Amino acid sequence: MNESQIRKLLEQVSTGELSVDDASSRLRSLPFEDLGFARVDHHRALRCGFPEVIFCTGKTEAQVAAIAERIVTAGSDMLATRATSAMYDAVAARCPSAEYHETARVIVVQEAWQDRGIGEVLVVSAGTSDIPVAEEAAVTARVLGNRVECLFDVGVAGIHRLLSHRETIMNASVLIVVAGMEGALASVVGGLVSRPVIAVPTSVGYGASFNGLAALLAMLNSCASGVTVVNIDGGFNAGYAAGLINRKQE
Amino acid sequence: MNESQIRKLLEQVSTGELSVDDASSRLRSLPFEDLGFARVDHHRALRCGFPEVIFCTGKTEAQVAAIAERIVTAGSDMLATRATSAMYDAVAARCPSAEYHETARVIVVQEAWQDRGIGEVLVVSAGTSDIPVAEEAAVTARVLGNRVECLFDVGVAGIHRLLSHRETIMNASVLIVVAGMEGALASVVGGLVSRPVIAVPTSVGYGASFNGLAALLAMLNSCASGVTVVNIDGGFNAGYAAGLINRKQE
Amino acid sequence: MNESQIRKLLEQVSTGELSVDDASSRLRSLPFEDLGFARVDHHRALRCGFPEVIFCTGKTEAQVAAIAERIVTAGSDMLATRATSAMYDAVAARCPSAEYHETARVIVVQEAWQDRGIGEVLVVSAGTSDIPVAEEAAVTARVLGNRVECLFDVGVAGIHRLLSHRETIMNASVLIVVAGMEGALASVVGGLVSRPVIAVPTSVGYGASFNGLAALLAMLNSCASGVTVVNIDGGFNAGYAAGLINRKQE
Amino acid sequence: MNESQIRKLLEQVSTGELSVDDASSRLRSLPFEDLGFARVDHHRALRCGFPEVIFCTGKTEAQVAAIAERIVTAGSDMLATRATSAMYDAVAARCPSAEYHETARVIVVQEAWQDRGIGEVLVVSAGTSDIPVAEEAAVTARVLGNRVECLFDVGVAGIHRLLSHRETIMNASVLIVVAGMEGALASVVGGLVSRPVIAVPTSVGYGASFNGLAALLAMLNSCASGVTVVNIDGGFNAGYAAGLINRKQE
Amino acid sequence: MNESQIRKLLEQVSTGELSVDDASSRLRSLPFEDLGFARVDHHRALRCGFPEVIFCTGKTEAQVAAIAERIVTAGSDMLATRATSAMYDAVAARCPSAEYHETARVIVVQEAWQDRGIGEVLVVSAGTSDIPVAEEAAVTARVLGNRVECLFDVGVAGIHRLLSHRETIMNASVLIVVAGMEGALASVVGGLVSRPVIAVPTSVGYGASFNGLAALLAMLNSCASGVTVVNIDGGFNAGYAAGLINRKQE
Amino acid sequence: MNESQIRKLLEQVSTGELSVDDASSRLRSLPFEDLGFARVDHHRALRCGFPEVIFCTGKTEAQVAAIAERIVTAGSDMLATRATSAMYDAVAARCPSAEYHETARVIVVQEAWQDRGIGEVLVVSAGTSDIPVAEEAAVTARVLGNRVECLFDVGVAGIHRLLSHRETIMNASVLIVVAGMEGALASVVGGLVSRPVIAVPTSVGYGASFNGLAALLAMLNSCASGVTVVNIDGGFNAGYAAGLINRKQE
Amino acid sequence: MNESQIRKLLEQVSTGELSVDDASSRLRSLPFEDLGFARVDHHRALRCGFPEVIFCTGKTEAQVAAIAERIVTAGSDMLATRATSAMYDAVAARCPSAEYHETARVIVVQEAWQDRGIGEVLVVSAGTSDIPVAEEAAVTARVLGNRVECLFDVGVAGIHRLLSHRETIMNASVLIVVAGMEGALASVVGGLVSRPVIAVPTSVGYGASFNGLAALLAMLNSCASGVTVVNIDGGFNAGYAAGLINRKQE
Amino acid sequence: MNESQIRKLLEQVSTGELSVDDASSRLRSLPFEDLGFARVDHHRALRCGFPEVIFCTGKTEAQVAAIAERIVTAGSDMLATRATSAMYDAVAARCPSAEYHETARVIVVQEAWQDRGIGEVLVVSAGTSDIPVAEEAAVTARVLGNRVECLFDVGVAGIHRLLSHRETIMNASVLIVVAGMEGALASVVGGLVSRPVIAVPTSVGYGASFNGLAALLAMLNSCASGVTVVNIDGGFNAGYAAGLINRKQE
Repeated sequence: MNESQIRKLLEQVSTGELSVDDASSRLRSLPFEDLGFARVDHHRALRCGFPEVIFCTGKTEAQVAAIAERIVTAGSDMLATRATSAMYDAVAARCPSAEYHETARVIVVQEAWQDRGIGEVLVVSAGTSDIPVAEEAAVTARVLGNRVECLFDVGVAGIHRLLSHRETIMNASVLIVVAGMEGALASVVGGLVSRPVIAVPTSVGYGASFNGLAALLAMLNSCASGVTVVNIDGGFNAGYAAGLINRKQE
Repeated sequence: MNESQIRKLLEQVSTGELSVDDASSRLRSLPFEDLGFARVDHHRALRCGFPEVIFCTGKTEAQVAAIAERIVTAGSDMLATRATSAMYDAVAARCPSAEYHETARVIVVQEAWQDRGIGEVLVVSAGTSDIPVAEEAAVTARVLGNRVECLFDVGVAGIHRLLSHRETIMNASVLIVVAGMEGALASVVGGLVSRPVIAVPTSVGYGASFNGLAALLAMLNSCASGVTVVNIDGGFNAGYAAGLINRKQE
Repeated sequence: MNESQIRKLLEQVSTGELSVDDASSRLRSLPFEDLGFARVDHHRALRCGFPEVIFCTGKTEAQVAAIAERIVTAGSDMLATRATSAMYDAVAARCPSAEYHETARVIVVQEAWQDRGIGEVLVVSAGTSDIPVAEEAAVTARVLGNRVECLFDVGVAGIHRLLSHRETIMNASVLIVVAGMEGALASVVGGLVSRPVIAVPTSVGYGASFNGLAALLAMLNSCASGVTVVNIDGGFNAGYAAGLINRKQE
Repeated sequence: MNESQIRKLLEQVSTGELSVDDASSRLRSLPFEDLGFARVDHHRALRCGFPEVIFCTGKTEAQVAAIAERIVTAGSDMLATRATSAMYDAVAARCPSAEYHETARVIVVQEAWQDRGIGEVLVVSAGTSDIPVAEEAAVTARVLGNRVECLFDVGVAGIHRLLSHRETIMNASVLIVVAGMEGALASVVGGLVSRPVIAVPTSVGYGASFNGLAALLAMLNSCASGVTVVNIDGGFNAGYAAGLINRKQE
Repeated sequence: MNESQIRKLLEQVSTGELSVDDASSRLRSLPFEDLGFARVDHHRALRCGFPEVIFCTGKTEAQVAAIAERIVTAGSDMLATRATSAMYDAVAARCPSAEYHETARVIVVQEAWQDRGIGEVLVVSAGTSDIPVAEEAAVTARVLGNRVECLFDVGVAGIHRLLSHRETIMNASVLIVVAGMEGALASVVGGLVSRPVIAVPTSVGYGASFNGLAALLAMLNSCASGVTVVNIDGGFNAGYAAGLINRKQE
Repeated sequence: MNESQIRKLLEQVSTGELSVDDASSRLRSLPFEDLGFARVDHHRALRCGFPEVIFCTGKTEAQVAAIAERIVTAGSDMLATRATSAMYDAVAARCPSAEYHETARVIVVQEAWQDRGIGEVLVVSAGTSDIPVAEEAAVTARVLGNRVECLFDVGVAGIHRLLSHRETIMNASVLIVVAGMEGALASVVGGLVSRPVIAVPTSVGYGASFNGLAALLAMLNSCASGVTVVNIDGGFNAGYAAGLINRKQE
Repeated sequence: MNESQIRKLLEQVSTGELSVDDASSRLRSLPFEDLGFARVDHHRALRCGFPEVIFCTGKTEAQVAAIAERIVTAGSDMLATRATSAMYDAVAARCPSAEYHETARVIVVQEAWQDRGIGEVLVVSAGTSDIPVAEEAAVTARVLGNRVECLFDVGVAGIHRLLSHRETIMNASVLIVVAGMEGALASVVGGLVSRPVIAVPTSVGYGASFNGLAALLAMLNSCASGVTVVNIDGGFNAGYAAGLINRKQE
Repeated sequence: MNESQIRKLLEQVSTGELSVDDASSRLRSLPFEDLGFARVDHHRALRCGFPEVIFCTGKTEAQVAAIAERIVTAGSDMLATRATSAMYDAVAARCPSAEYHETARVIVVQEAWQDRGIGEVLVVSAGTSDIPVAEEAAVTARVLGNRVECLFDVGVAGIHRLLSHRETIMNASVLIVVAGMEGALASVVGGLVSRPVIAVPTSVGYGASFNGLAALLAMLNSCASGVTVVNIDGGFNAGYAAGLINRKQE
């Protein structure tokens, strides 16, 4: 249940379409719903602008499907990250409109997409192996109501690949930079633009990349001002943050 | 030299007020200026919306003063972080309008402040010892053209202190959360709002805080969606990023 | 053989029911029993209030079953943690009264449960994925003679979920807080109560959670006074410590 | 203002000794008081059983003295940890009854000590260099209303020193074990008793002790069941936790 | 080819039993033999008292078998550690007298064992899960010509198990202490004896044991004087060092 | 397309063999080619002396084959590292001249090898288990136009094995030293020669080798002057750097 | 009071020279003596062959002097490590026969040195900066009754410096190898000898030596069999262990 | 004594200018000279092309001066790194021709500089604070016989500063890239050139730069092929390696 659904309900009450008792009963379930193993936070959509997101790692297929169903039943859009295709099958059995973004490992249920952004979110990634994380960011930002463009495989070892897209880069409203190994792309992009840059280190690399630690530290120490960072492989979080930044404030 | 100064110069050329030769000569110095030990990046103001910032650590007082003078002489505002009071004295000798924010350790030269923001930046900090970092963020954001409000010493061990300011928190356009020790404040604030949250871990703590590592890791792993993170004690970077996010796009 | 069994034996000796030789022979086996690969510490129940617990990782099914049998044969209750279902089958073949708590991965043999606690142990956990560790703590505390209540999926990103249970939280005698990711729940709960809080970091998370290190460091640095911490995923240890704290002293 | 002071106030209201207005005015200041740089949490004493404690590191002498004065003025006991003697002088100038425990680096203001414990808290430490941390724990536990006994320099390299005090160890209600280097003392003590053990790693050692990391990891991995751990050099936290555990529940 | 074989050969030359050419030819192969992928160091037995040992990890079964055959063919004893049973099969096919110590994962070819030690090597281990590493140490020490005794599952959480074997411990010439988790056993044993103690941390444990790091750091920081340490799970190295220490010097 | 191919093309234009339009069309594709998931950097051969290299980890077989085909079609040599045999099959199906170096896990397509080096590259490795990394370095250096010699299994524990090859070592133009465990070989070789030494730490080892960290740190701290280091298991990078160093400058 | 003093006392009792009462009184003080801040372990000399050693770091000058006096008064030799010259002055005021080894930072009181060793202890060090740690090892070993020889500045970057002393190295009974930076010396020496080698990493180095971590890890991973390791800068511990190894067993 | 001095000496012997006895006597001192605390390696110049370099950290002023004098007396050039100005004074007192490079903290004694290089060494640095390390590299390379050029303060946050020097960069024979913070400069430069690049991480930065660890890891994981890395702040080592690479081979 999101903000416009609440307004609609309250208007129905004010016009008499809906009795106070019925409205009350529907609102009562709002704060959260207890599934025993999970408390679905229906209140979140009001508070944070998007319903609770399901982080699938460590949950069973049945748990994911049950939580997803409660969210969809409550009339909300639904986003599940780190989802296996088996989890998707379990969700799709209960929510037929669910879509699966395989590379991004994301399940989405969304009634009607609507552009809620100021400008465009641009997802830039360094290498081919970074694409799954970049796609997770892109799908997330799109579901939250943003136009999203992608620019993949433009790592700094061939900087002309990046600079040839300078215009696209300058025009973005928010930028997400996804890179493993030494993560230098975030600093170079950060130095080119005057808009917020969210850096996503990935676990791509070997040896002393220490599963993304090298890229994480590099991004936290970026010499370009104003770069902020999310967790290693945190595509979802970057997409979510970009969505918050790009959202028109009413 | 910032964007409006450039426009003005070009208009003067188009109206004949300024000869092409003189304009050319003034623009030529734009890209950067070589001081031997430093290349002052005058182009940055055009590219990134604010002139190069001086990170004072590891520089001598004379170097800081020389770089500051070149920036101010070029007609730009100037911001120097991690500045000692001796550095301030050296700068003030050459740039009399320089101001020193002692707690924040920041030197500022700014001709005319102007509100360039969509809303308000709110700086929230957990403990008294986090104030220097929080102030660095606040001063930086303000210099970049943002209205800034502060809410200090509202750590989660007494959560009613935080919740009693819920309205202030909900109304901010961008939030900066500054915390050392376990850094839990970022997650709690992140769960309350639907606006971007920038988390700043501080080196406040002892033992297994490992000079801010505990807070840094906690913030990177925040269970609240959309929290992004900057370096330990990175008040400047957080203020800068908040400024970019809050800036009205033309 | 626990304290009351010893007293009984000594009384039988004093009344002549048991000869000194027989008593002596039964007591002789007390200190520990050598199985070659393990020395079962029968003396522990007297010394520490509960017989030795079997930590199953790194042991074969046959070893677990053999040790379990010796403990049960000696008349003690038995607790085996990190047990696979195959280990359970091996134990059940020798000790038919053994029960298996699957989520908690714990095998229990207990003749007669008895409430030995001052109040109630409350197990609070942040997310659905933390439940196995939380259950291990809950089962352990219960076997040691405590009433245990559970409150799952009340992480700080939706703090109203937690605050709506404030009364349950305030009434507990000892609290176990189980959380992965940034582990902030321990600090928030610790700030709400005036009873001991035991924090259990879990390995739930990804990237810079470094298999629970982030939560561990956060909990060690909790700004709430009086929070103590156990090992990552250390549900057993937390349940055991809670049991010691809550036990009525005679 | 603690619980008994509140009851007294309410009784005065019920008997007419105190007008509703006056009582209201005194209670209003309760939640917290804003000193600009700090929000003194007067509510904490009610919630957590002891007023807010001042962690002095990173605060100026003036800040410590100002916070201390507000706490004492509000009628509460006061505890300040990691206090320098200069801080003590600043506090004593405003609160003449303040005492300084030099080895423990703790300032205390306490009107009337009262035994609120079930039994005795025993502080055991491994080496002479661990004494400051052990004393911090002891002073804290005592101020919270516990009888405290100390057993210093009984490290495991000469285990007969420890075993010769077996009776004292067995009789304690709660044990605090303070050790640097390899921290083995916690496991040995934990294996001897059936009461809660709180382990405090110290930064005593050199080389690969990594400022207490070795002892911290050792204690978290103790093979003795039910040992819980606090931060490196966290004497205050251990004393506080021991006080909560030992406190009689009404 | 070991020292006594060399002496014998030289004596045969001096008595004319062996021609200079033949002796020369046999000695020429001594320094090392190049198998392409490995240079078998036949000289080592002379230099270090024992032929080169095969560390099997990262080698193929064929490589292990080929190296083993060359060593045995050269008339030396042979020791291969971290060997799988498949490796054993490959070795046994070429060296029928090879024996496999399954728990220790060690293959041995030894013509005639001989006691070359001053006293007895005692291997003490903390828990059942530490036995494979302890056995590797024991087999290695025995093959090098030492009498070896073992004392398993005597961890410090039940210190009476250890103290009941005080005499055995006091009588050993060299002690190897094998422990995972917090590794405290090394300090306790080190404090009891006046003979060299070699500590072997194992990767037994979970969470913050970080695969043996906790035990390693603990042992390096042992408060008992004279404890030396080998690599995590380094049973072979400990056995080898104990053998060197215990060997009678001629 | 490499430098000589470009010169040829330009000569054809100058002689009229090739029309300006055709030449232009062939050059246009040069900078890079967008495959959607990858941007093949054809410009690299001109800029860096060798076409882009495919790092196969994290790519699908189809992606590797597609990128390889584009490089070969453009007339360049091709090198793919960390390639599985399944990847090789996929590449060979499209590029029949591809060769697979199994131990080195490298796929090569090379029309005509040519010696472009000043002297010889020598690859020295410590143990049998280091051979795959050493071979990766050797194959890479050879493909780049260098004569390469190898010296395997000459670790410092039997230093005569190394010293017996002193002449080979002294004569090399560039040396690559590959070692796991403690990585001491790099320092010893570095002290013997007056030519550049590139050290490659490998993940060979166990326990506190921490997957190559021990060797990496050792090599970075080499007491021999002028040793430079690449990533753990970075055979390719070492071979590439050695090729750059050894290349004749025109 | 050491073993021979005890025997003498008992003989005096048997011959009537000493009354049972007096002997009893002198023996009573044996186990340990409580100084309040320290328990001097007089029993240690009997148990471990040498009286308790004073580790001075973290102790005051007065504490060091008081403990030293108790040990000397009890008739024992005394060794204090990490002693400042101020500590020496304090000790010398009470124990006039105390000597100070400045480079080694060690204070010694020893009545009569006696050779108790099988052979000679050789201390080998890599660089000039490692000498203080090497001297601490040498002084310790000597005080324990060993003949000690030193070989300084023979690091592996100039291996001929080491090899020119091959004979000295081969003849030692026990070797202590002291090295910072990459610590390779331990492996090279370990490969040359057939006697026990104790490796001491030092904190000499910079950058990625991480205060001795690089050398520590290298030594733990030594490819030479039988090398054991002590803590970073642990000269005392190495000297003590070498003394135990070299001691003649009666 | 370097190679040409040796040749000259031998020629003098062959022409009878020098008696065999005198020559022998002068050569005898060659291998190394024992100063007690140091063994000066005169042989090194022959073996490695440059006399031993003095690493001053951890040495006394007297030790530095004594070693420097021995090297100069032997007729060699002398280089001392990490030298304080007090050390310089001590050296200059004995070697009047010594020069001090203050920023680089290097003392040099050099009779006659000679260009021994193939091309030019280019030292590129990211920020003003990196200059001391960059200067150490530049001075070292120059002393070894290389022409050296410097390009300072061209960090990637303003990439046009770097690209405007593309020609200088492309023309260098060897490049040294010095950068702290995230160290991205190494990857960008590495992607632009076809010559060897040596990356030097510096400890410039704060917070999660962990004293240069972030830059070190980034450089080890550079996506640009052929970048090799030296220790944090290892300017000397980089300059030395660059000198070896650039040296003409005879």
